[in-house]
Amino acid sequence: MDLHEELLEHAAKLDAADPLARMREEFDLPAGTVYLDGNSLGAPPRRVAGRMAQVVGQQWGGRLIRSWSEGWWTAPERVGERIAPLVGAAPGQVVVADSTSVNIFKALTAAVRTAPPGRREIVVDADTFPTDGYIAASVAELTGAVLRPVPVDALESALGDRTAVVLLNHVDYRTGRMHDMAGTTALVHAAGARVVWDLCHSVGVLPIELDALGVDAAVGCTYKFLNGGPGAPAFLYVPSRLQDSFDQPLSGWGGHREPFAMEPGYRPAPGIARARCGTPDILSLLALEAALEVWEGVDLAEVRAKGLSLTGFFAACVARLLPPGTVEVITPMDGPRGHQVSLRHDRAEAVMAELVGREVIGDFRTPDVLRFGFAPLYNSHADAARAALALADVLGAPPAGRA
Amino acid sequence: MDLHEELLEHAAKLDAADPLARMREEFDLPAGTVYLDGNSLGAPPRRVAGRMAQVVGQQWGGRLIRSWSEGWWTAPERVGERIAPLVGAAPGQVVVADSTSVNIFKALTAAVRTAPPGRREIVVDADTFPTDGYIAASVAELTGAVLRPVPVDALESALGDRTAVVLLNHVDYRTGRMHDMAGTTALVHAAGARVVWDLCHSVGVLPIELDALGVDAAVGCTYKFLNGGPGAPAFLYVPSRLQDSFDQPLSGWGGHREPFAMEPGYRPAPGIARARCGTPDILSLLALEAALEVWEGVDLAEVRAKGLSLTGFFAACVARLLPPGTVEVITPMDGPRGHQVSLRHDRAEAVMAELVGREVIGDFRTPDVLRFGFAPLYNSHADAARAALALADVLGAPPAGRA
Repeated sequence: MDLHEELLEHAAKLDAADPLARMREEFDLPAGTVYLDGNSLGAPPRRVAGRMAQVVGQQWGGRLIRSWSEGWWTAPERVGERIAPLVGAAPGQVVVADSTSVNIFKALTAAVRTAPPGRREIVVDADTFPTDGYIAASVAELTGAVLRPVPVDALESALGDRTAVVLLNHVDYRTGRMHDMAGTTALVHAAGARVVWDLCHSVGVLPIELDALGVDAAVGCTYKFLNGGPGAPAFLYVPSRLQDSFDQPLSGWGGHREPFAMEPGYRPAPGIARARCGTPDILSLLALEAALEVWEGVDLAEVRAKGLSLTGFFAACVARLLPPGTVEVITPMDGPRGHQVSLRHDRAEAVMAELVGREVIGDFRTPDVLRFGFAPLYNSHADAARAALALADVLGAPPAGRA
Repeated sequence: MDLHEELLEHAAKLDAADPLARMREEFDLPAGTVYLDGNSLGAPPRRVAGRMAQVVGQQWGGRLIRSWSEGWWTAPERVGERIAPLVGAAPGQVVVADSTSVNIFKALTAAVRTAPPGRREIVVDADTFPTDGYIAASVAELTGAVLRPVPVDALESALGDRTAVVLLNHVDYRTGRMHDMAGTTALVHAAGARVVWDLCHSVGVLPIELDALGVDAAVGCTYKFLNGGPGAPAFLYVPSRLQDSFDQPLSGWGGHREPFAMEPGYRPAPGIARARCGTPDILSLLALEAALEVWEGVDLAEVRAKGLSLTGFFAACVARLLPPGTVEVITPMDGPRGHQVSLRHDRAEAVMAELVGREVIGDFRTPDVLRFGFAPLYNSHADAARAALALADVLGAPPAGRA
């Protein structure tokens, strides 16, 4: 058996034992495409198209304005409840609204404004996804705080009695490295500060326990592993214990205690609704709601196990197919990681373009990183093998001989 | 001929001469429904459902991540260009993003931060749509400015060398009164301050000349007379002359000069793109794009003339059908107004519920206002007559005798 056949056969065996294999049928993906970019844009769940037709035709077209009182106005909290179990949150603590960037702005500003006097530092991880750092800088400027970017591994020594809040990415978007949420949250709390976690690259990938760890706020997008659609609205978690003091600055009418009373003064709503701002964006929100229904009955432990298997198998295929040194694996394959494998290669941009031309779709991140994301609900080990084979072909690896 | 027949016949004559009558075919409205709430939620243009199916199935499902570089990333500016001619803006000055509330936050914060020292007052009209006032209060708190609510008629005396920015609603959401954009903008400028106009209740209703009047910023929603869908993303106008200094606080990666360079520091994009924040919400944005295509070739002067005719005819029908004093017309029928007629009645909420039960759909605003909105693209004089007849019936007007 040659190496190609061996890898594909191994993949077939792993897929045959996959308890999540049935989930692939929930998604609409072009035949023949190996889609490994669910860490950037999740694939469309089949039920979204029908839901959109129903929302536009019947809810908007048929019920018109009445739909606002027939489920639209409360959709931000209702859809939030579908995300809550995916992040370890009891009911009443997650709302879907606005973008990740806007929600970071709300969470950080609220944290700085309620911090004790003297705590004026906003700490962010130095390798953060850029928008987190950009927003943190703006919050610092507006509130008179100081922005302090720190490598995650040096976080402990940076924390102290001047720290107001720490903003961290659970999984690094470039490398796929997963940070220790339990340990880091405890460190931040020991320093008397608050922690805001960005879950963009981890929600829908692995079990998260926000309540159990006492996390102070969390944000995340819904268009990656949650498959909510391009630019789908983001979520914001604020634990019940902090909601009454959540002093967020985007005090739009959506977060008012009685929005339709049209009062001249702002009185924040009780509960998580005070994290809302403007009128909810219903088409995107209800597309997301349909996408989240796919998660009913899905065991996150199985998702996690499959993600580790997919990423591990892909890295193993790459190692067998490519001569040593052809690419550098920058994802910690022996350590905590999300569901992506990132490879460094000098011609990464051109290599990815060639792969995409062959319908093997990952992505490129400047300056030299190839990213391959694995979504356990619709990716298979066969996808991983085919992607590795295509990569070897593009990189001109010697024809595989006998294994 | 009895009065009912006379009014319906008069309506039919007016409708027969309506140059916009053909536009009704662009919309999907239930047969038998008189929909007079387009000032709250516009009716669905027929083409939206098909566009959504195409976006979900082909762009998202077929092209997947590639669609971001095939028209998604630039959609906020592209869709903005469809709004620009409706507000009198040359290209490159309107972007579609976030909600009205969020865009007010951007515009006011930018205005206060770039105001000369000493100018620390944010003036808002005292009868503003609530979210405008709520957001203005938050901006004042964050920037150390002072919020000053002022009745529009007393605006001139409130302006002075402490005024940084004035936020005004073009058309009042309750009464339908239209404020004088030209005169007021000149007043504010004469005081050395900047003006931000909220166009939520006027865009798509009447010709607006932002460039010609030298307006400093404008915001508006797209789900009322622009028919973009429930909670569709809002727009923000920043004139070219002020874009370089537009220092808005929601500095997400979407407004970065090179968003995909993933730089650690924020460098705002040139042009209107710096008014963006997070990842654009594509499903809602492209539904709006389809909705805006309906405006191609529509003459806003015709829209305005028809709106005045519809509102005037409705008020005339009400006056003929109801005994004097039954309702109080609070819309200035002899003065500048938008495309709604607001009536005060002690039992307004119950009256509107009865009308809606008869498929005559307007809305109620606390505590005692019935609102009837007229969208010239799909409403007819027959709608106006039928609504007035239904209102008279609900209010128990004496059976109409001979005219």
